[in-house]
Amino acid sequence: MRGPRYTPLVAELPSLVPFVGPETQERAKGAAFAARLGANESGYGPSPLAVKAMAEAASSCWMYGDPENFDLREALAAKHGVSRSNIVVGEGIDGLLNYLVRMMVGPGDAVVTSDGAYPTFNFHVTGFGGQLHKVPYDGNHEDPAALIAKAAEVSAKLIYLANPDNPMGSWHEAAVIQQMIDTVPDGSLLVLDEAYIELAPEGTAPAIDPADPRVIRMRTFSKGQGMAGARVGYAIAHEDLIRSFDKVRNHFGMSRIAQAGALAALADPDWITQVRAKVDASKAEIARIAQQNGLTPLPSATNFLTIDCGAGGDLARAIVRELGQRGIFIRMPFVAPHDRCIRISCGTEADHAALEAALPEALSAARASL
Amino acid sequence: MRGPRYTPLVAELPSLVPFVGPETQERAKGAAFAARLGANESGYGPSPLAVKAMAEAASSCWMYGDPENFDLREALAAKHGVSRSNIVVGEGIDGLLNYLVRMMVGPGDAVVTSDGAYPTFNFHVTGFGGQLHKVPYDGNHEDPAALIAKAAEVSAKLIYLANPDNPMGSWHEAAVIQQMIDTVPDGSLLVLDEAYIELAPEGTAPAIDPADPRVIRMRTFSKGQGMAGARVGYAIAHEDLIRSFDKVRNHFGMSRIAQAGALAALADPDWITQVRAKVDASKAEIARIAQQNGLTPLPSATNFLTIDCGAGGDLARAIVRELGQRGIFIRMPFVAPHDRCIRISCGTEADHAALEAALPEALSAARASL
Repeated sequence: MRGPRYTPLVAELPSLVPFVGPETQERAKGAAFAARLGANESGYGPSPLAVKAMAEAASSCWMYGDPENFDLREALAAKHGVSRSNIVVGEGIDGLLNYLVRMMVGPGDAVVTSDGAYPTFNFHVTGFGGQLHKVPYDGNHEDPAALIAKAAEVSAKLIYLANPDNPMGSWHEAAVIQQMIDTVPDGSLLVLDEAYIELAPEGTAPAIDPADPRVIRMRTFSKGQGMAGARVGYAIAHEDLIRSFDKVRNHFGMSRIAQAGALAALADPDWITQVRAKVDASKAEIARIAQQNGLTPLPSATNFLTIDCGAGGDLARAIVRELGQRGIFIRMPFVAPHDRCIRISCGTEADHAALEAALPEALSAARASL
Repeated sequence: MRGPRYTPLVAELPSLVPFVGPETQERAKGAAFAARLGANESGYGPSPLAVKAMAEAASSCWMYGDPENFDLREALAAKHGVSRSNIVVGEGIDGLLNYLVRMMVGPGDAVVTSDGAYPTFNFHVTGFGGQLHKVPYDGNHEDPAALIAKAAEVSAKLIYLANPDNPMGSWHEAAVIQQMIDTVPDGSLLVLDEAYIELAPEGTAPAIDPADPRVIRMRTFSKGQGMAGARVGYAIAHEDLIRSFDKVRNHFGMSRIAQAGALAALADPDWITQVRAKVDASKAEIARIAQQNGLTPLPSATNFLTIDCGAGGDLARAIVRELGQRGIFIRMPFVAPHDRCIRISCGTEADHAALEAALPEALSAARASL
C-alpha cells in the first residue's frame, strides 16, 4: 500500500505555513495573551449592526449562503460606483489570491513582488509552481517603478503591491499608483492589495476604473471593518476577469452569517469613521510608548505601527519573544533590513497599558539575551 | 491593453457553475420559495447550543480563527477514536475536495467516479485538468466493484464514491465499502464522501483505520448538523495525507464563528438523535405524499427522498419547474436514467403541507406541458 500519488509539484512543496497563529503560541505557553496585537486585527470589533446581523443569522445557517453573493455585491457595487459584474466576493483576500494565482500562474511562470511583502501571496505563487522575482523596497516603501521594470524584464503574469503596505505601514499617493497602473506591461496584471485602504489618508487610492484590464483591487472586511474571523474579502476588476473566478472558485464557499454581517457593516459607515479615529489615537499612543523606550515609530497609513528598534533582526526577534512571554502578542517583518523593526497592531486602552507595562522589561531582557 | 494571461488550462475551462442557488431562482421570479427542499439542507436547524455559540462568537469575530483548528480537531479526534493528526478541517467538503484534487490531479491524470455522482467533485477534477472516467450506476446504487475495476484499468489517482449516495439516496453496507477499500489499486486513493452518514442506518460506515493510506473519509456539519451556511467540513485520513493539506490550504480560511458553532454542536449529541427521528418522519410523510400522487419513492439513507416519476427526464424537469413556480424548491438528478427522478429534501410540517398542496397541480401542469 504505497498510498496516494501527488502531482510532481505538490510532492516537492514544503509544508510551509505562512503564519503561526497566536492560539498556537498560547497553547505552547499554557496561557492566553493579555494583549493580542500581532495580526492587525481590529480590537474595536465589527460594527454593532454587523454583530447583530451575524447573531441573528446564526439560527438560519442551516441554509447555504447565496452562491452569487448577490446582495453583498450589489451593495459593494453601489459603494464603489461600479457594476455587480465587476465584483467577486471570496473567503478573505487570501482565498481570492489563491483563485487568482491559480488562474494565471503555472509552473515556471514569472511573478513579481517586493522582498518582504505579503508571504501568503508568495505561498500561493509557489503552490502553483510560479517563479517569484523579488524587488527590494526603496527604504520603507515598496518601489512601484522597480516592480514594473522587473515585470517587463521577466514578462511577469502578476505584479503584487500592497497600498498601504504591510508589514511596513508605508503608502504611496494615488498618483503614484495610477502611474504604476498606466505602465503595467502588456499581458501583466497588477494585484493591488488595498486591505488597509479605509485607514489611509484621503488620496491614497486611485479612482477605480472597472474597464481597465491591467489591475485588480483587493479589499477586505478583516481590517477596518473588524471582521477578520468572518472571512469576507472582495475584488474589483474588469468584468471578464471577475467572470473567470466562476471557473475556479468554491461557489458555496461563503458563510451565510458572514454575508449577513458584511451587508450590515456596509450600512453603518459611521463605524469606520469611529474606527479611524480610534486607530489614529492608538497609533499616537503606541508611538509615545515606543519613543519613551528609545524606539522609533515609522509613519503608518494602516491599523498598525511598525517600529524601528535600531539594530538587526536578532534584537527585534528577541523583543517579539520577550513581549510574548509577558503576554503581549506582536509580530515583525521577516526580511532584512525590515527585520530591524517590530509591528504592533492598534488596540484598546487596556492593550496600551499592558504594552507600556511590559515593554521596558522586555527590551532589557531582549538586549541581555544577545 | 490585452489584459491578463490565463494558464492554458484555465483559458479553456467553461464558466460552469455546479449548482444554481435557490436565491437566484427567487430573484428571477420575484418571490421567495414557500418551501426550500432542494439543497438537502436541514430545516430543523443547528443544535440550539451551536446557535448560541455562534451568536456569542459574532462579537469576537474581529479575531481570525485559529488556523490549526486545534480545539475542533481535538473534539473530532475524540469522537472518531483517532488522533488530531488524522483530521483536517476545511471550508465544507467542497473546499476540501478542491484541495485534495489539487494535490493529486494534474493535466491528463485519471479520476474515476460514477456517471451522475456529485458534480462539484467533477468541477474540481476538470478544473485541474484531470480526465474523468465515469462508471454507470448499478440500478440506483453506485457500483463499487466497477469503480475499482475502472480505476485499475486507467490507473486512477482518485476514486470518488458517496455512501450514502447523493442524488439517489441509496447506500451500501459497511462490509461492501470495506471490501472496496481493500481492493483500491496501488497508487489510488478512495475519496469516501460520507456527508450523510449520520442519517444512515447503523452499519453503513466501515470502521475508521487512520493508518490506511488508501482512503480519505469526508464528513460535514452541513447535513445532519444543520450548519450548511457555516461552512465546516472535515476529512479523516492517514497523517501523511492530512499533513499535506498544509501545503495548499487557506490556513486562515475558517470562520471563527463556524469553529465555535461546530465545537458546540459536537457537545450536543442528543440533537443528532432528534434530527434523525425528524428526518425519518419527514421521509415517511414525503413518501406518502408521493405515493398519493402515483409516484414511487426510493429507499433513502439520507435527509432527502429521491422519487421515481415513472417517465423520462422531460417529465421530471417539468415537475421541478412547476413545483418551483408554486413556491416549492426541489432539485433532481442530472443524468439519465436517474433523471426520471426528483429529489426532495426533508422538511418541517409546514414544508410537507406546502408540498402536498402544490404537487397535484404541478404534476398535472408538468404532464400537460410535454
